[in-house]
Amino acid sequence: MLAYDCDGLTLHRHQPRLVVLPETTEQVAAAVRCCAEQGVPFIARGSGTGLSGGALAETDAVVIATSRMRQVLQLDLENQRITVQPGVINSWVTRAVAGDGFYYAPDPSSQVACSIGGNVAENSGGVHCLKYGVTSNHVLELELVLPDGSITTLGGGLPELPGLDLRGVFIGSEGTLGIATAITLRLLRTPPCVAVLLADFASMAAAGEAVRLITGAGVLPAGMEMMDNPCIQAVDDYFGLDEYPRDAAAVLLIELDGHPLEVKEAVELASRLCLQAGAGAVREAWSEEARARLWKGRKSAITALGRQFPSYYLQDGVVPRTALPTVLAAIDRLSAEHGLPVANVFHAGDGNLHPLILYRADQPGVGERVSALGGEILRLCIEAGGSISGEHGVGSDKRCYMDWMFSADDQATMQLVRRAFDPDGLANPGKIFPTPKTCGESARRLVELQAEGVVLPPEAVAF
Amino acid sequence: MLAYDCDGLTLHRHQPRLVVLPETTEQVAAAVRCCAEQGVPFIARGSGTGLSGGALAETDAVVIATSRMRQVLQLDLENQRITVQPGVINSWVTRAVAGDGFYYAPDPSSQVACSIGGNVAENSGGVHCLKYGVTSNHVLELELVLPDGSITTLGGGLPELPGLDLRGVFIGSEGTLGIATAITLRLLRTPPCVAVLLADFASMAAAGEAVRLITGAGVLPAGMEMMDNPCIQAVDDYFGLDEYPRDAAAVLLIELDGHPLEVKEAVELASRLCLQAGAGAVREAWSEEARARLWKGRKSAITALGRQFPSYYLQDGVVPRTALPTVLAAIDRLSAEHGLPVANVFHAGDGNLHPLILYRADQPGVGERVSALGGEILRLCIEAGGSISGEHGVGSDKRCYMDWMFSADDQATMQLVRRAFDPDGLANPGKIFPTPKTCGESARRLVELQAEGVVLPPEAVAF
Repeated sequence: MLAYDCDGLTLHRHQPRLVVLPETTEQVAAAVRCCAEQGVPFIARGSGTGLSGGALAETDAVVIATSRMRQVLQLDLENQRITVQPGVINSWVTRAVAGDGFYYAPDPSSQVACSIGGNVAENSGGVHCLKYGVTSNHVLELELVLPDGSITTLGGGLPELPGLDLRGVFIGSEGTLGIATAITLRLLRTPPCVAVLLADFASMAAAGEAVRLITGAGVLPAGMEMMDNPCIQAVDDYFGLDEYPRDAAAVLLIELDGHPLEVKEAVELASRLCLQAGAGAVREAWSEEARARLWKGRKSAITALGRQFPSYYLQDGVVPRTALPTVLAAIDRLSAEHGLPVANVFHAGDGNLHPLILYRADQPGVGERVSALGGEILRLCIEAGGSISGEHGVGSDKRCYMDWMFSADDQATMQLVRRAFDPDGLANPGKIFPTPKTCGESARRLVELQAEGVVLPPEAVAF
Repeated sequence: MLAYDCDGLTLHRHQPRLVVLPETTEQVAAAVRCCAEQGVPFIARGSGTGLSGGALAETDAVVIATSRMRQVLQLDLENQRITVQPGVINSWVTRAVAGDGFYYAPDPSSQVACSIGGNVAENSGGVHCLKYGVTSNHVLELELVLPDGSITTLGGGLPELPGLDLRGVFIGSEGTLGIATAITLRLLRTPPCVAVLLADFASMAAAGEAVRLITGAGVLPAGMEMMDNPCIQAVDDYFGLDEYPRDAAAVLLIELDGHPLEVKEAVELASRLCLQAGAGAVREAWSEEARARLWKGRKSAITALGRQFPSYYLQDGVVPRTALPTVLAAIDRLSAEHGLPVANVFHAGDGNLHPLILYRADQPGVGERVSALGGEILRLCIEAGGSISGEHGVGSDKRCYMDWMFSADDQATMQLVRRAFDPDGLANPGKIFPTPKTCGESARRLVELQAEGVVLPPEAVAF
């Protein structure tokens, strides 16, 4: 049980009393049916790499983990689709089809560990979502077990279907509408040519200016990622990758894909614009091995930071690309005010920030200080016209900030939609939405709505 | 009122008793509020080009037409987005930003007439959705008037947001959840090079084989469209375009975009594969004017057919691309059996068929025969693993076929979601879902569900 006491957000822990490890859809259905009969809540869990406490068993809920559901169920290359069980690891999908010239586009940094089921729950993004879109753009069909234990299908093998888009509602619903047990994904053709650039800058603002110039010139990179000096140093200490210049204030990683000549021209243009923005040097990687070496630092940055600071709290705010420079400067100020180091490693092309608040869990009272700084950073993002989450979900972690973005009426509407799937509120209760128990004042209006006769799931108003 | 007695589906007509033509969000809200207070249903209508009777006033409902809401509200090129009123015509969006090197990707064939609000209601596709996705992939934010007359916002200026994706549910909900009054769209960069190929074939099967070869070779055209001989002849009669070989059994139009060299190589490869599949000749068009000339026949095919047959019933089935040859052959057989000519002009790359049943409305009893053939064609599509609608919606036309694709429980769940937005069932009642009144037997299970205590909107069970 101890292994299931938290997900990737280690700030909050609660050990579940029962974990079920099914291998088939029928076993998932049997477990959920049993929960439904007994009125016991359940929590779906994939690989447990989530970063918003979405798979945390806060109450006496049963955890249903899909980590033994790892079969590829069907491969239909001619129609460019694959059907997998939810426990299949993200990077395994590409591995299964790469030999035939295909890949699966959404690639969270945790892709060697995170599951497709978890990706569906969180509507995960990744480096390549700048050009290719998030999970929702790549899921055609879902078989799922509903909260009453029945089995149904949403979507279909085709991208365009009539009726309300229940497939789309399910994706990103963070386990609150049921458990996906078979997922049909869209496969893309491997691009014929890929190059990666690494440019270093003397300031984050200069790197931000390079992002602005590249986007403004009409270049659409497959990915465009930024790392600040604390990340660069941690990566250098860990891997000794000499591609990452230790003293740079920022590096930008730019992946360009497509036709070889198109990539060549885009590389020349992007390099020139990086230098124009003040880059010290621009390194190019063309071979698969050289590209992997440049990406290694980015994909392992958080691991590398863990050597200095055993604990971190990773935020996931989004801002319009044009607001990046001011928001990054404001995060620096907040970091100094709160006396907590913040490292930045993020999807610059999408404006999807990942400020990483670093701390040592053994310092007394540090949890509250870390949470307070995280909240202030998200407040900044909202004020810049952004959002409290890009790809990590709300889970238990950010539910108290939901009313910064959504009115009580908006949330009540979402609860009614949720209730259409889960009338008894047994699927991952208490997640996403503020409740008076978890968020006090911020859930007051939901209680008022209930008094006005709006029927909400029990956990929305449970004290 | 007479001008509002049908939309693009002229088979069914009913004159409304009141049409409201607001110019602002506040005027829409006032009209809807008035309907809500009086318990009067209302129907949103854009340009009236829809093909599923979605804007048909079957009951004594008020039609709220957005044709005077034609302002561009905000243009933010740096973040590649534009906000428009719902009555703005699809092609105007591209026209407004083309000078700056941008365009709006979804392009229904009716794009010179259809409105963005209507595109949102139907989740419209178009020629370019093969490569670039449908309307839902390009709408960031929606301001809407809910069925109680209040104004709210779904989505945000960013592609990734937390919470349930209510934006996604609204898009394609065919006017049943409210009226969009301001729509923020994603703009794409104009591709640097575009070419169009036109290949003619001695059989539809050969043209289908070319589609299979091109897709199999990893070429992703911006669009890939097929037309059969009746369409080719009609276009030739109308425009005298000598690019369309009069006696060909089929032509394939293939648009390729991207970097100039990538396009050049794709043109060579696609041409070679067309010839390998048996094409008589492959014509290339590179200049904007030459491309427009090739597209003219495709975009005006339905108009051209109207010279021979004043009335048509356009179906909108989708099948997996691999099922195209067998389904097309089966449609030919059905056409002969029913004694009604069927012309085919469709999005071959997506497997999105548009069989056009041609008739003369003055023939007694022809309406029933046309409807029966349409139903049989959709049955074929379902049996091939497809869908009853790709991009035209269900509306009043296809609701009686919904239970071919969706179980009564699925439909009841959609109704509960609908009820979260529209508890009194005033927004476009009777559309999408079968009711005992409109579809008799096929709605029986919904009535049973109601007897079991499931609360459904009144029109779902109104006789």
